[in-house]
Amino acid sequence: MSNVAIVGASGYTGRELMRLLRHHPQLRLASAMTARPGSQPEPPALPCDPTVEALDLDRLADVDGVFLCTPHGAAASIAADLLARGTRVVDLSADFRLRDPQAYARTYAAEHPAPALLGEAVYGLTEHARDAVAKARLCANPGCYPTSILLPLLPLLQNGLVADGQPIVADSKSGTSGAGKAPGERTHFGNVHENFCAYGVGTHRHAPEIWQQAGTERIVFTPHLLPTFRGILSTIYVPPATGVTADQVRDCLAERYAAEPFVSVYQKGLPELRCVQMTNECHVAVAPSGPYVVVVSVIDNLVKGASGQALQNMNVMLGLDETAGLS
Amino acid sequence: MSNVAIVGASGYTGRELMRLLRHHPQLRLASAMTARPGSQPEPPALPCDPTVEALDLDRLADVDGVFLCTPHGAAASIAADLLARGTRVVDLSADFRLRDPQAYARTYAAEHPAPALLGEAVYGLTEHARDAVAKARLCANPGCYPTSILLPLLPLLQNGLVADGQPIVADSKSGTSGAGKAPGERTHFGNVHENFCAYGVGTHRHAPEIWQQAGTERIVFTPHLLPTFRGILSTIYVPPATGVTADQVRDCLAERYAAEPFVSVYQKGLPELRCVQMTNECHVAVAPSGPYVVVVSVIDNLVKGASGQALQNMNVMLGLDETAGLS
Amino acid sequence: MSNVAIVGASGYTGRELMRLLRHHPQLRLASAMTARPGSQPEPPALPCDPTVEALDLDRLADVDGVFLCTPHGAAASIAADLLARGTRVVDLSADFRLRDPQAYARTYAAEHPAPALLGEAVYGLTEHARDAVAKARLCANPGCYPTSILLPLLPLLQNGLVADGQPIVADSKSGTSGAGKAPGERTHFGNVHENFCAYGVGTHRHAPEIWQQAGTERIVFTPHLLPTFRGILSTIYVPPATGVTADQVRDCLAERYAAEPFVSVYQKGLPELRCVQMTNECHVAVAPSGPYVVVVSVIDNLVKGASGQALQNMNVMLGLDETAGLS
Amino acid sequence: MSNVAIVGASGYTGRELMRLLRHHPQLRLASAMTARPGSQPEPPALPCDPTVEALDLDRLADVDGVFLCTPHGAAASIAADLLARGTRVVDLSADFRLRDPQAYARTYAAEHPAPALLGEAVYGLTEHARDAVAKARLCANPGCYPTSILLPLLPLLQNGLVADGQPIVADSKSGTSGAGKAPGERTHFGNVHENFCAYGVGTHRHAPEIWQQAGTERIVFTPHLLPTFRGILSTIYVPPATGVTADQVRDCLAERYAAEPFVSVYQKGLPELRCVQMTNECHVAVAPSGPYVVVVSVIDNLVKGASGQALQNMNVMLGLDETAGLS
Repeated sequence: MSNVAIVGASGYTGRELMRLLRHHPQLRLASAMTARPGSQPEPPALPCDPTVEALDLDRLADVDGVFLCTPHGAAASIAADLLARGTRVVDLSADFRLRDPQAYARTYAAEHPAPALLGEAVYGLTEHARDAVAKARLCANPGCYPTSILLPLLPLLQNGLVADGQPIVADSKSGTSGAGKAPGERTHFGNVHENFCAYGVGTHRHAPEIWQQAGTERIVFTPHLLPTFRGILSTIYVPPATGVTADQVRDCLAERYAAEPFVSVYQKGLPELRCVQMTNECHVAVAPSGPYVVVVSVIDNLVKGASGQALQNMNVMLGLDETAGLS
Repeated sequence: MSNVAIVGASGYTGRELMRLLRHHPQLRLASAMTARPGSQPEPPALPCDPTVEALDLDRLADVDGVFLCTPHGAAASIAADLLARGTRVVDLSADFRLRDPQAYARTYAAEHPAPALLGEAVYGLTEHARDAVAKARLCANPGCYPTSILLPLLPLLQNGLVADGQPIVADSKSGTSGAGKAPGERTHFGNVHENFCAYGVGTHRHAPEIWQQAGTERIVFTPHLLPTFRGILSTIYVPPATGVTADQVRDCLAERYAAEPFVSVYQKGLPELRCVQMTNECHVAVAPSGPYVVVVSVIDNLVKGASGQALQNMNVMLGLDETAGLS
Repeated sequence: MSNVAIVGASGYTGRELMRLLRHHPQLRLASAMTARPGSQPEPPALPCDPTVEALDLDRLADVDGVFLCTPHGAAASIAADLLARGTRVVDLSADFRLRDPQAYARTYAAEHPAPALLGEAVYGLTEHARDAVAKARLCANPGCYPTSILLPLLPLLQNGLVADGQPIVADSKSGTSGAGKAPGERTHFGNVHENFCAYGVGTHRHAPEIWQQAGTERIVFTPHLLPTFRGILSTIYVPPATGVTADQVRDCLAERYAAEPFVSVYQKGLPELRCVQMTNECHVAVAPSGPYVVVVSVIDNLVKGASGQALQNMNVMLGLDETAGLS
Repeated sequence: MSNVAIVGASGYTGRELMRLLRHHPQLRLASAMTARPGSQPEPPALPCDPTVEALDLDRLADVDGVFLCTPHGAAASIAADLLARGTRVVDLSADFRLRDPQAYARTYAAEHPAPALLGEAVYGLTEHARDAVAKARLCANPGCYPTSILLPLLPLLQNGLVADGQPIVADSKSGTSGAGKAPGERTHFGNVHENFCAYGVGTHRHAPEIWQQAGTERIVFTPHLLPTFRGILSTIYVPPATGVTADQVRDCLAERYAAEPFVSVYQKGLPELRCVQMTNECHVAVAPSGPYVVVVSVIDNLVKGASGQALQNMNVMLGLDETAGLS
């Protein structure tokens, strides 16, 4: 039994980790702390909610791994502190996802708080970084949108199935939990219910992350806000390389992920959000549409898009069964 | 005061027309009939719902115009009957949208029931067919998805702002009222609520309609089902012609629609479904995104995407103020 | 044509009034002002939203009537100012609903800001106060829950159909627009969607208002928060006086409201929220249930429960057709 | 490891049992059959859905227990067959809930299909029937509404805290999953979303079940349909016996359920649906409201109100840890 802790436990991703860890056979949640400075615990909103402890990094001396569920900017300095004590860290914020501190500065409008750590941080899209994650002290957990787009897209790029130089459209739709637990205009019931919108067209912070991992900036990414709580569906329009068919695209993905416990490639039919909500799975389907091959992927943004993948990475970092607590 | 009637009044588009006509200053709803054969009226589901009369075309001898809100296939023969009596018809079904009876047969898996009328039917995207609609006896009311895509796209194609030969992605998301009032798996609450899906990828019946009106098949159209009742948002990825900027695209649309009462082009910000629900308006915004120009359009699928545009067309056909009953 | 203005136009009730006034044949909206002190207009959240002017009571010198859509506490002093200028006021806040300043102090935890005006304020449940409203300078627009409960209950109490001294349960369920446009924990999408709760059990501020108007404190009122935007449904459990049947209760209500344009009593079937949303109507049904007679009423909380009834009252105060702008 | 099977696995309660059994440490799901006669398995609606086997009772010879998730009427004869083979049965339908075959006939408008078994069937409100369930061959799993009402109410009746002879109001609100997986008018998205209604006022089939178990018919029960998928909240208005306070009511419940793993009594605050969704728990709060004591209870209708309690009962019948698979 190993001990882990959560910093930033009162947000949606922290809560989701608490839920997942409750059934983990080999990990014990030693501490669930707020990310807010100060010595006060956060009381539960309802009696059925958990109390979250005050932030106190000294109390984490003995834990084997820490999940950082804090806002970006705050995570980096906490990570530096924890690594100095010898604790492994999975950071769910964006602080270590971009390798280039200048890209970080452009994207997040702030100097990177711990550039010295960028070199060793491993981008934890687990299915594509398993070995590196296993050796890492610091894992940058991928963003929710990038996870939903990179899982189906990377094998196609790596196997030359995408036409050179042509733009790839990634039209993504997310539930509102991605916008966080703090109330605001964007997540007010009256602004979400019976509504739908695009946002951040051409400017969303996840685009540079997608581009970095895909190795190309020709991915045109548009996020949208669904009137649901959980889930991301990405509709990806792939211009196939000459002669490449939708069947070949499907076969490529099916083969690449045949042995992966959390990625399913459909032979027919299309996945819906309900197929993956509350699971760590990514479901993918492929269909031809005129000159393009359309790839549809779904994940639960709070699980495979955040806390589930974080746990998957922690399992790998601590040498446990990768699926423990996630099946 | 002119008299109009509705055939197929118990579905969502028929109901919406009844709602709109209640406040129309120059049209009187003489009759609201079911589309179901037989001599029985349809009783209201709730005391607050309207009773719909039995189908009886003989009773429509004196009306000036009829709205057909029947399923496709059924509309064509009713239209033929009504036209023979000298009544103007706006058909909200798909029966007269495709000019080519072979395209109809391929798309709707049935012989066209009245091919002799295809030649005179006018495709009623009002802003682009006003003069022809004014002279028409038979108006084919556009599909909901095509309306949301063609309004922003046609001016760009007509003005040479789109790169030749490159695919255009139209990723559309619709509320469930588009799937009709009859219960089914697709619209069961448990399958829609907290869910989202793509459907008809590469095969949806509205694609040939879009291609016909745009004059090109390189539009890659994917519909999705939102957990809302009303509204369509289309995210359109336009490959600009060499040197064309997002600002030029926006200016083109703003200029084209400056005098149109029902189309608004935003100078900044993005439209959401709530901007247009319960209105006959189409709101459009333009933003650059890497190599593409992204155009976002929203309409209410039951109003501008169906009954509102049908009323707009009827106003034009009867020589009334085009906006009567719609502002 | 008379001129009216709104103070507090950026909240949900102010917005709703703007929507209703757009189609009013005899009233012109001269001004829509924010309730926030300061000299700044409120910019629209989206391009499709209206701009709301800065607060400036001096600019209201010529209007015939003002709707106050401000928070309670703020309304009373503005009302005093406006009345001094000779302007009629319909106050949608709670400031003038309780006749007793001590009851106000207990309920709203503050001294009443203008107790001198309490004597002349008329409680505007229009169907039960038409004559007094017509003569009033200051109308206290009823709360949403009280409207949904008092309309069906008052005739039963007045006609002796309720058993003496026995408690009456009023179990009410409201959409979230009743909680206002400002974001907060209570209205965060993640706390409302796929959720439901009771609140303010035994302590809600609308209970004293219901008791005052019903003339008895034996009404046990519990509000609940629905995952909808609009609507209130109240389930009222009436202990009938000896020998009184559900049919007699229904007949009493049907007779009392036979001539009322906005109240419908069902002979059979039960009303649902969708029967009255976007209308100024109250629909009522009656059914026996063991020892009790159950009365179910529905209204749109933003229309008959707020802005619609306010406009109905303003129509009466200005001597216009009571239904103008509301049908 | 014991073997269990589900008959009627394609409905919501069957599906929920499949979900719960996936993590049960001591039960293996040997077979998941459709309830439909015929020799055909039911194909999955989506690739992510399970295939359900054809109905074949002969294949259940070796299982230790069977869950019947069939419609009422169909369950009784299957139960008779299975009991004759020596298999324990938990019936989630209504067939064995009413002890009196005449009450069954009145309530379900059909002769009881297996009256000889009524004598031995145990009503499985587990917390109140643990010993009898342990010895039973046939367990009648309680209805969802009765579970939400009886858990908080029974201890109050048993301890004399309720005023003699006075009506008790139980105003219940349920998510739509209670209406089942088959599409229909009642559960069409357009009739549920942004809507709310009461139904079955004074006539719902769960009332006789509540009355039987409470030992009194003075409970006035009204069900309502929420625009959510899961959950029931019941607001219960208890007339207290002379001198009994809300604190005493709360203490009574807290004491009665102190050792129960699935019932929580709040010392302060009110439970919401989200507190219990996806759990087998019932949360209860108590507050005074004028002459009454208001008790609010929440359960997940598909778990504690159906499949979870069924599994709890099966655990008890098979001598396993009662909480296995449910925590």
